[in-house]
Amino acid sequence: MNSYRPAADSGLHEACGVFAAYSSQQQDFNAASMAYYGLYALQHRGQEACGIAVASAGAIRCHKDSGLVSEVFNSRELAQYPPGNITVGHVRYGTTGSSERSNAQPIVVRHTRGAMALSHNGNLVNASELRQQLEMNGSIFHSSTDSEIIAHVINQEALHHDIEEAVSRAMPRLHGAYALAIMTESKLIAVRDAHGFRPLCYGRTAEGIYVVASESCALDAVGATFIRDLLPGEILIFDSKGVHTRREHCNSQPHRLCVFEFIYFARPDSIIEGSSVHEARLRAGAFLAQQHPVEADVVIGVPDSGIDAAIGYARASGIPFGNGLLKNKYIGRTFISPTQSDREDKVRIKLNPVPSTIRNKRVVMVDDSIVRGTTCARIVRLLREAGAKEVHMRVSAPPFLYPCFYGTDIDSSESLIAYQHTLEEIRQIIGADSLGYLSLENAQHLAQEIADKHADGGFCTACFSGDYPTATPLETSKIRFE
Amino acid sequence: MNSYRPAADSGLHEACGVFAAYSSQQQDFNAASMAYYGLYALQHRGQEACGIAVASAGAIRCHKDSGLVSEVFNSRELAQYPPGNITVGHVRYGTTGSSERSNAQPIVVRHTRGAMALSHNGNLVNASELRQQLEMNGSIFHSSTDSEIIAHVINQEALHHDIEEAVSRAMPRLHGAYALAIMTESKLIAVRDAHGFRPLCYGRTAEGIYVVASESCALDAVGATFIRDLLPGEILIFDSKGVHTRREHCNSQPHRLCVFEFIYFARPDSIIEGSSVHEARLRAGAFLAQQHPVEADVVIGVPDSGIDAAIGYARASGIPFGNGLLKNKYIGRTFISPTQSDREDKVRIKLNPVPSTIRNKRVVMVDDSIVRGTTCARIVRLLREAGAKEVHMRVSAPPFLYPCFYGTDIDSSESLIAYQHTLEEIRQIIGADSLGYLSLENAQHLAQEIADKHADGGFCTACFSGDYPTATPLETSKIRFE
Amino acid sequence: MNSYRPAADSGLHEACGVFAAYSSQQQDFNAASMAYYGLYALQHRGQEACGIAVASAGAIRCHKDSGLVSEVFNSRELAQYPPGNITVGHVRYGTTGSSERSNAQPIVVRHTRGAMALSHNGNLVNASELRQQLEMNGSIFHSSTDSEIIAHVINQEALHHDIEEAVSRAMPRLHGAYALAIMTESKLIAVRDAHGFRPLCYGRTAEGIYVVASESCALDAVGATFIRDLLPGEILIFDSKGVHTRREHCNSQPHRLCVFEFIYFARPDSIIEGSSVHEARLRAGAFLAQQHPVEADVVIGVPDSGIDAAIGYARASGIPFGNGLLKNKYIGRTFISPTQSDREDKVRIKLNPVPSTIRNKRVVMVDDSIVRGTTCARIVRLLREAGAKEVHMRVSAPPFLYPCFYGTDIDSSESLIAYQHTLEEIRQIIGADSLGYLSLENAQHLAQEIADKHADGGFCTACFSGDYPTATPLETSKIRFE
Amino acid sequence: MNSYRPAADSGLHEACGVFAAYSSQQQDFNAASMAYYGLYALQHRGQEACGIAVASAGAIRCHKDSGLVSEVFNSRELAQYPPGNITVGHVRYGTTGSSERSNAQPIVVRHTRGAMALSHNGNLVNASELRQQLEMNGSIFHSSTDSEIIAHVINQEALHHDIEEAVSRAMPRLHGAYALAIMTESKLIAVRDAHGFRPLCYGRTAEGIYVVASESCALDAVGATFIRDLLPGEILIFDSKGVHTRREHCNSQPHRLCVFEFIYFARPDSIIEGSSVHEARLRAGAFLAQQHPVEADVVIGVPDSGIDAAIGYARASGIPFGNGLLKNKYIGRTFISPTQSDREDKVRIKLNPVPSTIRNKRVVMVDDSIVRGTTCARIVRLLREAGAKEVHMRVSAPPFLYPCFYGTDIDSSESLIAYQHTLEEIRQIIGADSLGYLSLENAQHLAQEIADKHADGGFCTACFSGDYPTATPLETSKIRFE
Repeated sequence: MNSYRPAADSGLHEACGVFAAYSSQQQDFNAASMAYYGLYALQHRGQEACGIAVASAGAIRCHKDSGLVSEVFNSRELAQYPPGNITVGHVRYGTTGSSERSNAQPIVVRHTRGAMALSHNGNLVNASELRQQLEMNGSIFHSSTDSEIIAHVINQEALHHDIEEAVSRAMPRLHGAYALAIMTESKLIAVRDAHGFRPLCYGRTAEGIYVVASESCALDAVGATFIRDLLPGEILIFDSKGVHTRREHCNSQPHRLCVFEFIYFARPDSIIEGSSVHEARLRAGAFLAQQHPVEADVVIGVPDSGIDAAIGYARASGIPFGNGLLKNKYIGRTFISPTQSDREDKVRIKLNPVPSTIRNKRVVMVDDSIVRGTTCARIVRLLREAGAKEVHMRVSAPPFLYPCFYGTDIDSSESLIAYQHTLEEIRQIIGADSLGYLSLENAQHLAQEIADKHADGGFCTACFSGDYPTATPLETSKIRFE
Repeated sequence: MNSYRPAADSGLHEACGVFAAYSSQQQDFNAASMAYYGLYALQHRGQEACGIAVASAGAIRCHKDSGLVSEVFNSRELAQYPPGNITVGHVRYGTTGSSERSNAQPIVVRHTRGAMALSHNGNLVNASELRQQLEMNGSIFHSSTDSEIIAHVINQEALHHDIEEAVSRAMPRLHGAYALAIMTESKLIAVRDAHGFRPLCYGRTAEGIYVVASESCALDAVGATFIRDLLPGEILIFDSKGVHTRREHCNSQPHRLCVFEFIYFARPDSIIEGSSVHEARLRAGAFLAQQHPVEADVVIGVPDSGIDAAIGYARASGIPFGNGLLKNKYIGRTFISPTQSDREDKVRIKLNPVPSTIRNKRVVMVDDSIVRGTTCARIVRLLREAGAKEVHMRVSAPPFLYPCFYGTDIDSSESLIAYQHTLEEIRQIIGADSLGYLSLENAQHLAQEIADKHADGGFCTACFSGDYPTATPLETSKIRFE
Repeated sequence: MNSYRPAADSGLHEACGVFAAYSSQQQDFNAASMAYYGLYALQHRGQEACGIAVASAGAIRCHKDSGLVSEVFNSRELAQYPPGNITVGHVRYGTTGSSERSNAQPIVVRHTRGAMALSHNGNLVNASELRQQLEMNGSIFHSSTDSEIIAHVINQEALHHDIEEAVSRAMPRLHGAYALAIMTESKLIAVRDAHGFRPLCYGRTAEGIYVVASESCALDAVGATFIRDLLPGEILIFDSKGVHTRREHCNSQPHRLCVFEFIYFARPDSIIEGSSVHEARLRAGAFLAQQHPVEADVVIGVPDSGIDAAIGYARASGIPFGNGLLKNKYIGRTFISPTQSDREDKVRIKLNPVPSTIRNKRVVMVDDSIVRGTTCARIVRLLREAGAKEVHMRVSAPPFLYPCFYGTDIDSSESLIAYQHTLEEIRQIIGADSLGYLSLENAQHLAQEIADKHADGGFCTACFSGDYPTATPLETSKIRFE
Repeated sequence: MNSYRPAADSGLHEACGVFAAYSSQQQDFNAASMAYYGLYALQHRGQEACGIAVASAGAIRCHKDSGLVSEVFNSRELAQYPPGNITVGHVRYGTTGSSERSNAQPIVVRHTRGAMALSHNGNLVNASELRQQLEMNGSIFHSSTDSEIIAHVINQEALHHDIEEAVSRAMPRLHGAYALAIMTESKLIAVRDAHGFRPLCYGRTAEGIYVVASESCALDAVGATFIRDLLPGEILIFDSKGVHTRREHCNSQPHRLCVFEFIYFARPDSIIEGSSVHEARLRAGAFLAQQHPVEADVVIGVPDSGIDAAIGYARASGIPFGNGLLKNKYIGRTFISPTQSDREDKVRIKLNPVPSTIRNKRVVMVDDSIVRGTTCARIVRLLREAGAKEVHMRVSAPPFLYPCFYGTDIDSSESLIAYQHTLEEIRQIIGADSLGYLSLENAQHLAQEIADKHADGGFCTACFSGDYPTATPLETSKIRFE
């Protein structure tokens, strides 16, 4: 437990998706194809880059690149994978740019025990210290990811231990958030850090193939039946002997699942720790309605992220839910943004108000966050131009006041509007008639409700509360390494 | 007026979008860029192909190809257009395939009076007869589109008349549906057929640029203020003298706006003939609720087309609206469909149920149509697997029984499930507990409500009723011309 | 016969390649694939655009686009062609630019007798007049090519005659140069204009497939044995009854084969009118050696076009041939040219001198033409920097003084260096120690030698002599039609 | 010194190109652009992959991928590089395949002293041993290249020494062939192994930018003046203090420049160790003429590699040189090879005989090597079909009998035709009337002639003689690591 120290922002947060599968029989298992569909279902967790590694007959084939799953992989690329019995895949969040290709995952490395492929979701808080130690010891790095550091630490332990033991011994050295899928030529190992910051679950298909994924929606996509979430600190090994678990690190830390998975990251159809993401968002909307009631004629959500909470707000308040903002679904990577002079209209191209829902109405508009406030201000203006009499903004999460060090892109306090401005100032900036955030208290109630469903859970709410479950990074790497 | 004769299906229906703009001053008007954003807003009307033509200093530059607006045009392509004062653009509906490139629009032709570019939305019913006459007279054709026939007919008249008169004289020879934007080197001419089958409206930007579009949402996208719909049969001319109208063909036919524009084609934020598309869909849902009430726990829509009617059903019935099906938004052109053996799961990749909305619930599921029934059956099965106790399907349009000859892809009766099967058979095919379509009567009520808002309107409901406002095609071209 | 009038340059010259094939049996004949390899062998005749049309079961499928054969067609594209028994293809010369796509060939048109695809090499001299007449009669045009005019003229005749008769009746109306391959659903018709400006030959494969091509190298490429050149004015028809010829237009005009085909256009391994292109170039070099002897140490050719004549010069003069300029063969479409400031070095990137061939040597450098002189001047400078003591430039053709109206890109006199400058001025511009062109007299000797081999031939040398075999265009279309 | 042991083939040979530049001032030096043109000139040394790294303000940006320089880099990609004062680039030889991307260079690694980028041409003979040692010490590898091993070895030394000293200390541990360009944030270091197997030279532009390249043709391409080759064993450091040399490893081994650079690899316009590559090939042809004279009418070369030696043969023998085989220059990456059944004609598509050069002639055909004999046999057959009376094959290198371990792709003896068959058998396989290789003795004479020009040189002729200058690899990695 540790409170926030302002200077400590590493600037390299990430939210990613992990997928893996293990079949005891190689023949007829098109591992790469299954990974393709699995990653496709996890695409919302990362659109920057993706990759798939397949182990086949003692060799590992890996392809990864910047872009969406459907951009990086085509039929010809998938056809180049041999049939294999193990696969790990990854989708990566971040800004676009080909320079980032070297940061794509899975990472494939070769060491004295053989080859290993690794997919990672999360962020270490002691990355700088580990990297320095490793470099002093002669290690060299090809990327700027925490994930490569994890590979080095595991490899150091693997010099003297088998891979399972090496993973177990590496864990206490790795501080922070990590959900991992690690593949050797013959085993698949899934790992969740002792706080359980990031979700990781597994299931099984009718044919007996085991599937590991960040979210249950990826199990659904490949026809696997959910078995359970990994426990915080658990190591799960899939090999020719079957599935076995190692729990020596379980219960070493309090459970601190990222509350933002429910509020923002995860897909509504996923079940995490026994709770429906969709339901959590409906509940957030309902809490908002209790907390910030208003006389209004229609409740609308900002697509896509605000829709569920808007439905929840509407149900709890009795105000009808309406389809008030239309999103153009044809926007693609190659869409040309208007030039500077036309920029004001940009939001008009992606998002257009539905006048008949809005005109002469008092509108409650629900979204899941306000980051810099500019997009929000434009939407409010659009609604007024479309004839809204009043616009009441409701945000289905508490204000972000503290950066996240556990694998999300919630940035340094300095760039967070809520850190810089009072509630009234924000209201004026976005031009709304009223503004209400979900209170931290209600966010914790929400977490509590969810937690009640699983035995002894707890949540990380550091980005709202500053109450960090771990030590935070001491210093940050100043030199960008592209 | 004419009832349906079974053999008469041309097989080449289309629904398209038309965009055009006219500026009295050439300098600083980036006509191609405005067309880009305008067509982008009309992309829902056609994803097969698109094109933009710009008139500049007596020459016409046109680029068109198969693909989405954002695929066919990139910055380099747009930069190749000179500044020009007139532009016409087009988005085309249809199946993919490079062979179709020759059917892309605008059509640019050169004749004795100069050059002309033409964009067309609709279908002629006397295309075969006109083509035969023209061919007998020595005309040759480069495509299989009705639109090229229109260009020929106008050109024939233009041999002896100026272009405005030529367009007027061509109109009585063209039977069926056509909304046209025609550009010469110096004029923009917008035309709507005398029945007014397809919508066409115009507006004006603050800078005085006139904009013509199939739907008002495209005016919004380029910052133009809606002025009005063209009248059925109206010819509107934009040139250096300003805007003037010719109405000699107005009121020559009863108004027959396609009711399906409201139910299916148009974007919810568009206003057509003074009525909101979104509101019409809410009303369709409300009529459905009156007509086919059911005891249930939640109303869900099939995304994206069924959402609005589902909200309308929910409001009218008092049953809560829920987010019950999640659509994966990352699907792209290059997405690899599962192989035959995995095909069953395909719908799982694009659409996944949200279990917490569905489980142990009696679900009303609303969509706007049932075509062959297979997709529908899969969705019902998915809902049941996700725990739905009951699934009640509601369709926000009457059953299609008759093909459309006026520019939609409602196909020959033989392939329409409602023509082949009784209601009960369809219910069994899709596996729902109950099934209800919007009645033809209520569709007409809906149309009436909308029609009340504009003076003396009427609607075409031929696809439901078989009551065709024109003679239907006598024979069809047997030889495919690729 | 007509001498040159300065104002008359249409500005739209072209040199193209035509390929076609006919099989009496459809099964197992992959017509598109044969056209692919045939056009590939003709790629030197045109790199701007290309296309292939295949007739199959009464329908014609055509794909064409800007780019090289290997760029426009990939396996997937070829696989979309049905097996068919007739094919016509085309490669087009010109500048790059997607706006030119509408000028790509084959042209496919539909008229009252059915569909027709047409590939054309050459230029009409009465294009403007024909176009005007056709437009007055109601025809509309989709491109700015002469080829579309030809299609219209044939179509006019086809209204009252069968296709063979229509082609024959069209010929006297078409003045100028045309080698044509015309395909209907059931016939292939090859045509050569009465002067025989452009080459066209045919052959037959072991399986009995007839092949028509601009040059014999394309017959070689698809395994066909050369039969003979078409006669000037001949119409050759391939259909289910076999091959038959119509010669009513033969001998109506003196034979005027373009001498530049031998000097420049054709591939060295082609045989035209019984003479080897390669041998003609060796002879040009030998004539040059007689005409402009010089004391020197090495003869080099500018790759690729000057190599053959350089070998001829070397043999005739006894001066050793050397490899003095190296061409970088990896240059591709996407190669980035140096920016303006680096432009001087551009020739260094594509062409580098081989110092050991050059240093301290008196060099004879042979090329086939000097157009604007700038490239030539750079090469001379490069050779001097590499240590050449003297550089003697020899050009294996006479100076261009007159534009060509028969399908090459020899431009208006104003832009031809030899029209603007004296020999001595040109020598100074390019910086050579001496300069010698092939004399018009020797060019005619060369032509005579070739002509001796075939009965009563003659050559067009208008670009050197101004002696045009036909009337030249009276006026030119001022309005660019993109 | 060591003679050949049959089992010892590592299977991972490579021939590559290295380019680097150093400017003492950063402003206005577009380092990436210079590397682009430099690598483009070295493209003949490797077409599999390429990359460019630029150091700017303490950070290194690197982009690399499979493909040609003109494919991997476009304007947008180059524009993303910041201006920087140091660059290293690489072109890589090998088979195509996206799986090879991880083997692309430069390798960029980060270690305790900062970042380092490294380009390597050559092959180590103790790679397996080094890798094993490094792995036992905890190192992990991301690729299967020797180059990554070199980076690790240098890094180990850099833990205790500055980078220059580290490089020097690494050299005695690296056995085999390596020409290296190593970049840190502030220095460029060029290294050549003590035997001098691979060439490496440097020069300087008029603006004072130092340029390092595998061949002098790349200096020409970027406007740099050649200064000299690096000495075998030399370390050359470019930094803010200027250029300085370290020669502690010079003369530690006999000079053993690869003779095949002259015969095959290098570009004819390059000067290596003071000798012209072009001249060496002319000499090889002349030796061949002395050694294997024949009565004949024409000497032709197989393009492009056999042309120079054919000219040399022609000059020495007095038999005229002719252009006998035409290469289609439009073949591209995307060219579709004929299907299996058409494969016999493949050589016809890429290469066509020029009949007028061949018919009724006794032909001497010169090439630089015979690998498997199949291509050669097809060419001989083509020549006969084109009318050649006799075909005499001459090869401008001795037969390969032994694999190369120093960075070329001369494969294991088992697949070399000369190892498997007698001269007479090979003659029969290829169908020639006579066959003559350059004798090992004459290859050594040739080498001697070249060597005479520089003080105390010597050559590696192991692939012909089996006389290896170093120990050869003891064992090979059996597991492919993709």
